[in-house]
Amino acid sequence: MDPYPAPVSRLIEKLGKLPGIGRKSATRMAFHILNAPRSYCEELATAVMGVKDDIRLCKKCFNLADAGLCGICRNPKRDEHLICVVEDPSDLIAIELTGGYRGLYHVLHGHLDPLQGKGPDTLHIEELLMRLKTEPVKEVIIATNPDAPGTTTALYLQKRLAPFNVKITRLAQGIPVGGDIEFVDSRTLIASLKRRSEF
Amino acid sequence: MDPYPAPVSRLIEKLGKLPGIGRKSATRMAFHILNAPRSYCEELATAVMGVKDDIRLCKKCFNLADAGLCGICRNPKRDEHLICVVEDPSDLIAIELTGGYRGLYHVLHGHLDPLQGKGPDTLHIEELLMRLKTEPVKEVIIATNPDAPGTTTALYLQKRLAPFNVKITRLAQGIPVGGDIEFVDSRTLIASLKRRSEF
Repeated sequence: MDPYPAPVSRLIEKLGKLPGIGRKSATRMAFHILNAPRSYCEELATAVMGVKDDIRLCKKCFNLADAGLCGICRNPKRDEHLICVVEDPSDLIAIELTGGYRGLYHVLHGHLDPLQGKGPDTLHIEELLMRLKTEPVKEVIIATNPDAPGTTTALYLQKRLAPFNVKITRLAQGIPVGGDIEFVDSRTLIASLKRRSEF
Repeated sequence: MDPYPAPVSRLIEKLGKLPGIGRKSATRMAFHILNAPRSYCEELATAVMGVKDDIRLCKKCFNLADAGLCGICRNPKRDEHLICVVEDPSDLIAIELTGGYRGLYHVLHGHLDPLQGKGPDTLHIEELLMRLKTEPVKEVIIATNPDAPGTTTALYLQKRLAPFNVKITRLAQGIPVGGDIEFVDSRTLIASLKRRSEF
């Protein structure tokens, strides 16, 4: 029993496929769009297609780009001696938003997952090795996620990067800044104890 | 400092204008759209424009419709002796979803709000009176919202409908089914005491 006219049903169904959007939110959004000015709807529809039509991957680091190279690779002020390797563009963005990193990136677009048939050739690893041969890289920071597939990927990368004359580092693990020790999980707590540093 | 390429930023901005969607959700949705199959994006963009291009108001009851008359007015099984007057299409849908009403509707598209300059001529009231002259209506159920503007609208409607030979009713007020008396607000509790009924 669907009380909506077909165009509204269709929009609710499409919006309901977005992450975190249930049927209730999708309905609310659909009614908002229904009552919004035509110009907004056109801009929204154009923006949806825009990320399909106008987004490509940076030829160098595989970050999202709207030209051959991404904004970071195009920026002459970035430190080209540093490459931070991340799994996905959203990880890159999280690091960029901190404002605390001025080097370049390399986006793998995934992680190793042998059970899912995702081997090294599904990631942009060869391209990273090629960059080490042609760019003045001094340090590679491996910033894959601190979960099982991310750690597997990091260990594999470490092995592949070893023959190159670069420093290989990874993100520090420990208790979150501003966190409460009471609520830190025990594996993190053990890591923070093991890697404790002097005052 | 915006780390996203322009097409992604644009999409995040447009999605962020939807109700209940903050910047974080909009970003998550934008990345989902970015990674979704092209067919989904086309369907979503088309659906967004669809509610602008293909939705009109029912000529008779002003419900949302994809043809001259809405699905309810077109349905010969609905009881044409009953008209339920609601403020908005979403109220109509809430009643339809109960499955407990088989009459017709009339959608006012708003409520009286003199302070906002919304007088009776901004609502589809004349069209309702016209229906009473031409349709075999026996009862008008006034189902405006139980808040101040809705009640004002209901009282105004009651006055305008009085000259017609129809029964005028409104939705029962009282404690919600399955509710807990402890948490019912005092105005609702007073209403439920006043309108108490025999076992």
